[in-house]
Formats: sequence, structure tokens, C-alpha cells
Amino acid sequence: MNYLTIQNAFFKLKSNRVFEFFVIFIIIVSALEIGAKTYELPEAAVSFTKMLDLFITLFFLVEITIRFIAEPHKRQFFKSGWNVFDTLVVVISLIPINDSEMALLARLVRVFRVLRMISVIPELRILINSLIKAMPQLGYVMLLMFIIFYIYAAVGSFLFESINPVLWGNIAISMLTLFRIMTFEDWTDIQYETMEVYPFSWMFYLSFIFFTAFAFLNMVIGIVVNVMEEEHAKARAEEHGEDPTIVDLHREIQDLKRMILDLKQK
Amino acid sequence: MNYLTIQNAFFKLKSNRVFEFFVIFIIIVSALEIGAKTYELPEAAVSFTKMLDLFITLFFLVEITIRFIAEPHKRQFFKSGWNVFDTLVVVISLIPINDSEMALLARLVRVFRVLRMISVIPELRILINSLIKAMPQLGYVMLLMFIIFYIYAAVGSFLFESINPVLWGNIAISMLTLFRIMTFEDWTDIQYETMEVYPFSWMFYLSFIFFTAFAFLNMVIGIVVNVMEEEHAKARAEEHGEDPTIVDLHREIQDLKRMILDLKQK
Amino acid sequence: MNYLTIQNAFFKLKSNRVFEFFVIFIIIVSALEIGAKTYELPEAAVSFTKMLDLFITLFFLVEITIRFIAEPHKRQFFKSGWNVFDTLVVVISLIPINDSEMALLARLVRVFRVLRMISVIPELRILINSLIKAMPQLGYVMLLMFIIFYIYAAVGSFLFESINPVLWGNIAISMLTLFRIMTFEDWTDIQYETMEVYPFSWMFYLSFIFFTAFAFLNMVIGIVVNVMEEEHAKARAEEHGEDPTIVDLHREIQDLKRMILDLKQK
Amino acid sequence: MNYLTIQNAFFKLKSNRVFEFFVIFIIIVSALEIGAKTYELPEAAVSFTKMLDLFITLFFLVEITIRFIAEPHKRQFFKSGWNVFDTLVVVISLIPINDSEMALLARLVRVFRVLRMISVIPELRILINSLIKAMPQLGYVMLLMFIIFYIYAAVGSFLFESINPVLWGNIAISMLTLFRIMTFEDWTDIQYETMEVYPFSWMFYLSFIFFTAFAFLNMVIGIVVNVMEEEHAKARAEEHGEDPTIVDLHREIQDLKRMILDLKQK
Repeated sequence: MNYLTIQNAFFKLKSNRVFEFFVIFIIIVSALEIGAKTYELPEAAVSFTKMLDLFITLFFLVEITIRFIAEPHKRQFFKSGWNVFDTLVVVISLIPINDSEMALLARLVRVFRVLRMISVIPELRILINSLIKAMPQLGYVMLLMFIIFYIYAAVGSFLFESINPVLWGNIAISMLTLFRIMTFEDWTDIQYETMEVYPFSWMFYLSFIFFTAFAFLNMVIGIVVNVMEEEHAKARAEEHGEDPTIVDLHREIQDLKRMILDLKQK
Repeated sequence: MNYLTIQNAFFKLKSNRVFEFFVIFIIIVSALEIGAKTYELPEAAVSFTKMLDLFITLFFLVEITIRFIAEPHKRQFFKSGWNVFDTLVVVISLIPINDSEMALLARLVRVFRVLRMISVIPELRILINSLIKAMPQLGYVMLLMFIIFYIYAAVGSFLFESINPVLWGNIAISMLTLFRIMTFEDWTDIQYETMEVYPFSWMFYLSFIFFTAFAFLNMVIGIVVNVMEEEHAKARAEEHGEDPTIVDLHREIQDLKRMILDLKQK
Repeated sequence: MNYLTIQNAFFKLKSNRVFEFFVIFIIIVSALEIGAKTYELPEAAVSFTKMLDLFITLFFLVEITIRFIAEPHKRQFFKSGWNVFDTLVVVISLIPINDSEMALLARLVRVFRVLRMISVIPELRILINSLIKAMPQLGYVMLLMFIIFYIYAAVGSFLFESINPVLWGNIAISMLTLFRIMTFEDWTDIQYETMEVYPFSWMFYLSFIFFTAFAFLNMVIGIVVNVMEEEHAKARAEEHGEDPTIVDLHREIQDLKRMILDLKQK
Repeated sequence: MNYLTIQNAFFKLKSNRVFEFFVIFIIIVSALEIGAKTYELPEAAVSFTKMLDLFITLFFLVEITIRFIAEPHKRQFFKSGWNVFDTLVVVISLIPINDSEMALLARLVRVFRVLRMISVIPELRILINSLIKAMPQLGYVMLLMFIIFYIYAAVGSFLFESINPVLWGNIAISMLTLFRIMTFEDWTDIQYETMEVYPFSWMFYLSFIFFTAFAFLNMVIGIVVNVMEEEHAKARAEEHGEDPTIVDLHREIQDLKRMILDLKQK
């Protein structure tokens, strides 16, 4: 039994629907186990989850090995961000952790196993990819929003620090406070407090809410228009491929003219 | 008088506008009765509502029977989800309930009679149907959102349980707390509490708000684009059916060419 | 000087730009006067506002009379909702009110004069008209939302009345409470209170939020799609009017075919 | 070395990528310095920021001078709003301020330097320009919203002033309270307070929320439709420029007809 035979066998196994569903099943079991750990469990259940943990770790290791061997071009394997992510999750959960000391960290790492659900189900992978694709377009709106936040945080910190250092102590705290104001969370309390010293400070809050709301609106519209355009471009590309266009008709009519001219000169 | 005559008579009755309005009127009466019961009523009114209740139950029973008999293909009747719903509501309210014991349950069942308003008015039925149709497309976004909630709830439960077990006690409670954070309801109080122990826990809240907002945005845009596409497809289908298209023109011009060629060779 | 001459003179006056701006100026003065009255004013200012009030009332009376006389078809005048509205505002503020008794009511009536700003500026009138036009389409979504509110209010009133009669006392109070929950205003406090008695009552709140959010989304998308379609229809209508369409081309090519056939048979 | 040589050299320098990145770098340094000042700094750092401040002021002065000299048409320079803004920021920070007295004002002026980030990065400039372009269309919706606010504030002030003068004392305070209600910030507390005196005052709040929500929706849809139309117009313009249209085809077919008629008459 040579290597190619194994590779072929693993490729078939990997693409097998039953195998796929089994992988999803194990991920769900792993998610349920993580959920169960947040409850207080009896002794027996605790030792059972430890065994289950070991089994899941080993299963994921075997699964990723199968997928790696099944890949004909090994370099291609790590070019997919999803494979890199899967490998990282498996490798990190293999690191032996002294339970008493860093139990919390070990738990947190295991939580990321649930994210494997996204890498395994293609429809979720598409959703995440489309989000990542939209990122660069949003980049400049985000930068603009950050500049607005930064300026208001600086002004807020200079003016209101002496009024309430817990909310306006320095630029970092002020930015967190501004984010809170953007979500409308008890923002009037903050406003009334500063209005006692600076009666016109409501202009600070109102203008901030207007600017961030506008920037956000701009962002949403940007995405919508973008998505629409892509859909239109796709639709147009399809039409051009299959059906004759007005340009084609134009060419045909030119042909007709030449033919009739020929007729005349006959 | 044979069965077919009755069926025909009932079909005419069912489609009669006056009958339709009377059914809607009885549903409104039933809704008002339910509303009235939430107020403290004098003795006389209580006994009146009991009689009214009986009358409405009997009327709905008669109405559904008429509609069932009017249907030529009995099997078709229960294939419509709305008929099944109507029948269930009627049958359940027929079950005799000992008033002293399960009065509350009896009341709740009667509330669902108001939902019959939707099954009776076609425009509302269309609204609900379009919502149900949009469901499968939203399914994967919902799943993605559930995974985000689950991971954040697990992490939140591991990290913050000792700080506030009422909010982060286990994964179920944590998910409810996260839903509250998503609605921006007093979320900064929760944040400030955990920031005292973990000063960087604001990253937990901000990233959660960003992810859920993005997922939600994605969802909304998905629906809008989808609805738009359907409208376009409908518009295109109509155009193709009635008017000649560019493809037709192309074919016609090809015909012209052949005809002129024939002329030449004459 | 006969009636027609006056009518013509008034029509010219009504359409005069200076007159229009003067009317807007008086409305702004009237708005400022109403605003000023909310402050505590010295004696002199109070008597001045009384005189100003009388002047504005008379001015509006004269203005509406001019506009009525200027209208060639008197019946047409009251067919415009805006004219009816203007007349009502003027007539009601003419009713003499004993200042000591119903001063508040007199003040409230005068506030509606500010609304005349909308009837005078055409761009605002267009905005309001488009809102009113969108109303019937929204009607059924509103009805659906009302049914959802009614059912949840009935259920909430039956289950939670004994827990907190201030919030769930009867169906009317419950609907107000549900509106508050829809705006996410301190809704978790209400939830935690009922969860102590019914631990699963979070399902009541979550399902309600989902249903109303969905219904609202549906509404927004409905309007957007509608507005878009109208724009498209307008664009298409314009194209059809000015430029030849594919249908025209088709007819022309059919003509060509017939002509070439004629040639052949010659 | 004459003036034109300098102008040319400066124009090259201004357009140089390294120079552009250096300007952005200095703006970032200036932003970080402003952020640092919100923290309590040791003596040494304070004197360092003073020197840094001087350097940045001088650098900006030099940079704007270079850009001014590089401009061939001096009048054109101040026609760009961005150049005027940059010059203002530089000139104002040049004004010597007695540190002990107006230190706060000096600090605030320096904050606006961060805004130069927008004038320097073209993508951000485009974002802001598109916001400014959308303004006039939004103007009338804003005016409508202001009228709604004004009327509700007047009514609120007349009715509720005696209940809570802190929230409804005069028309200005009432408008701020209404803005708070629009953001759903603790609005039910305000409502419950007035409902004790006027049990039907919930109609005031609900109708206000409906009107502002509708006006806002209208605004958003207005922008979306507008942006869409512009995109469509652009797309159409491109098509017309490059490809033959149906109008062209129509003309060509007319030519064909004439040619065939000629053939016949031959």
C-alpha cells in the first residue's frame, strides 16, 4: 500500500457526507461539553468531561491529519486561512497545561473549537468571507469615525476632566465614554452633569451624535450600494455572455447596409 | 337534497362577502372579550362573557365545518397550514376545562383566536407568508449569530462568573445577558463591574457589539438584496413574456440577411 | 371696480414672492412668540404678546380671505386639505376665550399656527404628501403589528398581573409596557421581575422583540422597494416617451422584411 | 534662481509621496501629543511637549507656505475650502497665548490639527464632500423635524412645566428633553411622571416617537434613493458614451429602409 493509495482513500473519506456529518457532530458535542462546564457538575461528570476532552482533541488531530494527507499539493493546504485556523486550534489544545495553574486559559482555548463550526459548514464560510471582503471599503469610514472619536475625546478630556475624572480622566477613558454615548446608554446623565458647569455642553453631545449617526449611515449606504453594484455587474456579465447585445445588433445592421449597397451596385 | 348541493351552497356561502365580514366581526368581538377579561368585571359581565365564549366557540366550529364541507378535495383542506391552524384553535377551545383549576390555560388558548384574524384577511396572510419564505435565507445568519453568542457566553461565563453569578452564572444566563447587551440595555453597568477585575474586558463588550451589529447588518442587506432581485426577476419575466427582446431582434436581422442574400443570387 | 378685477389683483398678490416671504415671516414671528411665552416674561412683554397675538390672528384672517377670493373656483378651494387646515387654524383662534379659564387651551390652539409653515412651503408639503401616500401600504403592517401587540398584551396581562399590576394591570397598560419593551427602555428590569415567578418568561420577551423587529424590518423594506419601483416606473415612462424602444425596432424590422419580400416579387 | 524655479521645485516636493507621508506622520505625532496631554505627565515630558508643539506649528507653517508657493494661480488656492481650513488652523495656532490664562483655549485649538488628517488623505476628503453634498437634500427634512420638535416642545412646555420644570421649564429645555426621548433614553420615567397628572399624555410621547421615526426613515430612504439614482445616471452615461444605443439602432434601420426604397425605384 503506497502513499498515493492512502492519499486517495483519505480524499474519498474527507469528501464523504457521513464523515462530514460526523465531524459536525463531534464539534457540537465539544460545544455542549464547553457549555456543560459552565454549570457546577458532580464528580463523575467532571472526570467524564476530562475523558471526552481527550477524545475530542485526538479526533480533531486525526481529522486534520487526514485532510492534510488528502491534499495533493501540500503547500496549497496552508494557503487557505481556514486550514491554518483549524490547525492552530488543534495544535494549541494539544499543549499540556497544568490544570491547577492555568485551567482558565485551557478552557478559553477549547472555546475556540466551536468556531470550527464556521470552517466546516460552507454556507457560514461564505458569510464570513463576504464580511472580510467588505472590510477594506469600510476602512476609510472607520478611520473617519476614529478621527471624530479622537477629537471629541480630546476636547471632552480637556473640558470635563475636573467634573468627572471617572468618565473623562484621559483620552482612552473618554473614547469609551463616547462609545457609550453613541449607544445612547444613560447619556443624558453624563450630559446633565457637565451642563451644570458648562451650560452649552449639550452642543458637544448633540453634534457628536449627529456626526457619528451620519458616518454610520454613510457606512451602511456604502455597503448597500456596493453589494447592489456587484449584483448588477454579475447580472450584466451573465447577459453579455449568453445573449446578443445592442452592440452586436449594431454590427449586424452595418452588415445589412453593406449588403444592400452591394445589391445596388450589381 | 344531496351532498353536492350542500357543498355548492356552502361554497357560495363561504365566498360571500357578507359572511366574510361577519366572521371578521366575530373575531373582533372575541378579541374585545379577551381584552375585557383583563379588567375587573362585575358579576353580570362575567356571566355574560361565559355565554359569549360558548357562542364564539360554537360559531367557529360551525364556520370551520362549512369551510371543510365546501372544499371539493378534502385532502387539499389540511395541506393549507392556515386551515390546520384554524382547526387546531377551534378543537383546543372545545376541550372542557374545569374552570377553577386550569382557568389560566383556558384563557391563554382563547387568546390565539385573535390570530385567526391573520388567517382570515388575505393581505395579512401574504405578509406572514413572505416572512416565512425569508426564513431559510436567514437561517445561516441566525446560526452564525448563535455561534457568536455561544462563544461569547462561554468566555463570559468562565471569566466573569466569580464577579457576578447573577449575570454570568452559566452559559444560558450569559446568553440572556449578552442579548441584553445587544439591545444596549444598561450594558455599561455590566462593563464597569467586570472592568474593575479585568481592566481590558471592554474589548470583550466592544468586539461583541461590533460582531453582532455586523451580522445583523449583513442580515438586513441580505433580505433587501433578495427582495430586490425577486422584483427584478418578476419585472424581467413580464418583459420577456410580452415584448420582443434583443434576442428576438437578433434573429429577425439574421432573417433579413438571408433574404438579401437570396435577392443577390436571384 | 368689479369682483373679477379684485379677484385678479388678489391672485397676483397671492403669487407675489414678497407677499409669500411676508407670510412666512409672520408665521416665524408667531412661532417665536409661542416660544417666548414658555419663559417667564415681565409685565410689559406680556401685554405686547397680547397685542401681537391679535395682529397675527387678524393677518392670518386677511391672508386666508385673499387666497379664498383669488381662487376662481370656490368649490376647488376646500378640496385641498391644506386650505381646510389653514381655515380651521384661523377660525379656531378667532373664538374668544375667557383668559382666566381656558388659557391653556387657547395657547395650545395657537401652537398649531406653526404647522402653517408646512402648508406655506411647497417642499415641506411634498414631504408630508409622500408620507400620507405611503400610509395605505403600511396599513396592513400596522394592523399585523397591532395584532401582535394585542395578543402579547393579553397573555402578559393574564400571566403577570399578580406580579406587577402597575405594568400589567389590564390590556391597555400592558400594550404601553410592550411599547416600552420595543424601545428597549429598561426592559430587562421587567423581565427579571417576571422571571422570578415564571423562569421561562424570557421566551415571552425575546419572541416579542423578534416579532416586532421583523415586522418593522418588513415595513422598512416594503417602503424602500415601493419607492424604488416608483422611481423605476418613472424612469421607464420617460424612456418610452422620448426614445424608440425595442418594440419599435421590432416593428421597423418587420417593415424591412416586407419591403425586401416586395423587392423579390418584383 | 528665480521665482518660477522655486515654484516648480515646491510643486514637485508637494506631489512627492515621501513628503506626503511625512506630513501624515507629523499629523499623527501631533495627535499623539494631544492624547498624551490628557494624562498626567512628569516635568520632563511637559517641557518636551512644549518643544514638540513649537516644532509642529513651524512645520505646518512651512508646509502650507510650500503649498501656497507651489500653486501657479494664487487666487485658486483659497477657493478650495480645504486650503482655507488648513490655513486657519495654522494661523490660529500661531497666535501667542499667555499659558496661565487661556491654556484651555490653546489646547482646544491644537485639537483641530487632527482634522488636518481629513484634508490630507484624499479618500477621507471624498467622504466628507459626499456628506456635504447630501446636506441640501436633507435640509427640508431637517426643517420638518425642527418644526415637529418646536411644536411638541411648546405643547410640552405649556402642559408639563408645573409637573417638572427641570425637564419642561421652557421651549429650549423641552427640545433637549424631546431629543432625549427620541434616543429612548429613560423616556418612560418622563412619561410615567406626566401620566400621573394627565393620564392621556402617553399619546403625546407615542405620537412624537412615531413622527420623528417616520421623518428619520424618510430621510434615510431619501439619501439611499438619491445615491442609487446618481449611480444609475453614471452607469447610463457610461453606456451612452461607449456603446450604440437603441436610438442609434433606430436611425440605422431608418437608413436601411431608405436604401431598400432606392433599390425598388431603380
